[in-house]
Amino acid sequence: MNRLQRALDALVERIDTPAPIVLVDVMQGNIDRIQGFADQRNLKVRPHVKTHKCVEIGRRQIEAGAVGITAGNVGEAEVFAAAGFDDIFLAYPIWAAGSKKPRIRRLAESARLRVGVDNVAAIEALADAMGDEPDRLQVVIEVDCGARRSGAPPEAAGDLALAARKRGLVPVGVFTYPGHGSSGPDARKRAAQDQEAALTTAVRSLADVGVTAEVVSAGSTPTLEFSTSSVITEIRPGEYVFGDLNNARLGACTDDQIALFVAGTVVSDWVPDQVILDVGTKALSREGSPEIGYGGIAGTKAVLAKLNEYHGFLPLPDGEFRPSVGSVVPVVPNHVCPVVLGFEELIVTDSTGTSLQRWSVDARGFLN
Amino acid sequence: MNRLQRALDALVERIDTPAPIVLVDVMQGNIDRIQGFADQRNLKVRPHVKTHKCVEIGRRQIEAGAVGITAGNVGEAEVFAAAGFDDIFLAYPIWAAGSKKPRIRRLAESARLRVGVDNVAAIEALADAMGDEPDRLQVVIEVDCGARRSGAPPEAAGDLALAARKRGLVPVGVFTYPGHGSSGPDARKRAAQDQEAALTTAVRSLADVGVTAEVVSAGSTPTLEFSTSSVITEIRPGEYVFGDLNNARLGACTDDQIALFVAGTVVSDWVPDQVILDVGTKALSREGSPEIGYGGIAGTKAVLAKLNEYHGFLPLPDGEFRPSVGSVVPVVPNHVCPVVLGFEELIVTDSTGTSLQRWSVDARGFLN
Repeated sequence: MNRLQRALDALVERIDTPAPIVLVDVMQGNIDRIQGFADQRNLKVRPHVKTHKCVEIGRRQIEAGAVGITAGNVGEAEVFAAAGFDDIFLAYPIWAAGSKKPRIRRLAESARLRVGVDNVAAIEALADAMGDEPDRLQVVIEVDCGARRSGAPPEAAGDLALAARKRGLVPVGVFTYPGHGSSGPDARKRAAQDQEAALTTAVRSLADVGVTAEVVSAGSTPTLEFSTSSVITEIRPGEYVFGDLNNARLGACTDDQIALFVAGTVVSDWVPDQVILDVGTKALSREGSPEIGYGGIAGTKAVLAKLNEYHGFLPLPDGEFRPSVGSVVPVVPNHVCPVVLGFEELIVTDSTGTSLQRWSVDARGFLN
Repeated sequence: MNRLQRALDALVERIDTPAPIVLVDVMQGNIDRIQGFADQRNLKVRPHVKTHKCVEIGRRQIEAGAVGITAGNVGEAEVFAAAGFDDIFLAYPIWAAGSKKPRIRRLAESARLRVGVDNVAAIEALADAMGDEPDRLQVVIEVDCGARRSGAPPEAAGDLALAARKRGLVPVGVFTYPGHGSSGPDARKRAAQDQEAALTTAVRSLADVGVTAEVVSAGSTPTLEFSTSSVITEIRPGEYVFGDLNNARLGACTDDQIALFVAGTVVSDWVPDQVILDVGTKALSREGSPEIGYGGIAGTKAVLAKLNEYHGFLPLPDGEFRPSVGSVVPVVPNHVCPVVLGFEELIVTDSTGTSLQRWSVDARGFLN
């Protein structure tokens, strides 16, 4: 990953650190590769925007062939709807209360809106929110495939679809999230198999009550390689657009596919065999563990051993990599999604480090 | 802490979740109590704004008697300077490069600016940044007292002060951060003793080269109770304004002094003895561990056992507390500082939950 340091070296005079740097050629390669993978298998791509929260990147995903976007909350959906995205799936068991009721109604007026549901009370609240136009809202039944997070048992999907239809909402299918596919390289395929089994059961449960599953929606960057069952109609990967160390460890991306890093400056070097970077939890979040560290320096074996809010502790055990105070280095996150929380904008360049654009993190701070 | 649930119940129809809720009466009590503690001991208070990043809260700290503010990076300092704060200490070993050079120069023109330094190269870069007006910038030598983060050895402080003076910068004192005081209740006092010893040595080192330490600046919420040595002139606590579970566990605040929680809604309850909240890492950051959990529900023993980005996994082992889907509950963070990263605004109420204001998180996203 010395390519990241090379791009950074070309860029360094023009940026202040810490800053999230996107290599747009690598990112575009990720977008095109996954789209091509899905096209070959007759799968639609509906990328999750939680990873980038950036309208410009969402547009590139659509231009490459994505059918629409996935959002994780009403605020994200609103930002992208306002930017003209007209096919949005809120893949979350939304609870419609307070001002979320009119917000959801307005969203359903400005875009084809699909919302996840996994229980009857939430269906009732959504129907109430939609007033006299419940048929403007499509619902997708969430089922659990082993992550033990949200989602009904797959065999309960039909009853939930009926409950939605009874209130005038439009049930269009089922979705699940194979989150247990991130626990290790071996887990990816098994979770994808669990996902296929759960979705197959859920589709049958809908059919049993006379509902056709037009949408059969699957995760995720770690599992998509194995999510090619003919029952699945669409995939919702998020992290693939940037990649990160977690996905590289899982085998879900290569080092060369990592498209985002955080540029950090060495600010102090008094402790022997350690330097301090200006990259802490407010840039990276506390993603990692004492065992794997909290982010790695591209092209080296050095990993951040500890983070404070504005300080990253970087041990330098082997003595080869010894950046001096003032050096700027590329920090690759373990988990890329939290990085967009802390920054107003992404610094967008290419692998040569010559171009420089600033793209707004449009949906940052929209968490409800 | 059922008081938090009571305030939330009164407020719940008027907010969308997840949302950070501040009880302004409790917060004001924290501000006034620490100010009173410091006044009695002839210590100045210079609160760290990283915790709230909110101009309105900074104003209240100044109104209560704080002499100025502490910021963690240039961006935070700029936001508060633009809002009229005229005494700012950047308690960080700033590396002045790129556009940070003119930014620091402009800051020093609009406020009395003090900047941390712990090495000669950084002093040279700051002096270069100040052009022909280096005397507009005061520097405070950072020394290490055992956190092994940034900071020179205390006995090196004098040489650094001389290096600064040689370049026309104005050395005004020394500071340190006793970060090792957060490792457990017993560590607080020991770290404060280390802090006193390091600052005493550093003051002597300055005196040896003819520099008077006008500023002798100490951390921190966990250690301030023990930071009352006559060598210290000011304290820089941040977290005291809100409190959190980490500080409560350390004995550095009481449960009744916790002034911020994140309101979360139960969105799914299919897994036996578990519910899912809409409070995940993008609201709380991943602060905690499997042992202590990742945030607690006020007034109960329930703690979040696991977080995804938009999902909090809440086991309900004892069977007494069984919130249904749609219930809104107060989540108290382990570490309060990252919460402001994810939100545009703080919802500000009081312990009765009747009032409601929205205060902007002004310096959110300003990380460099």
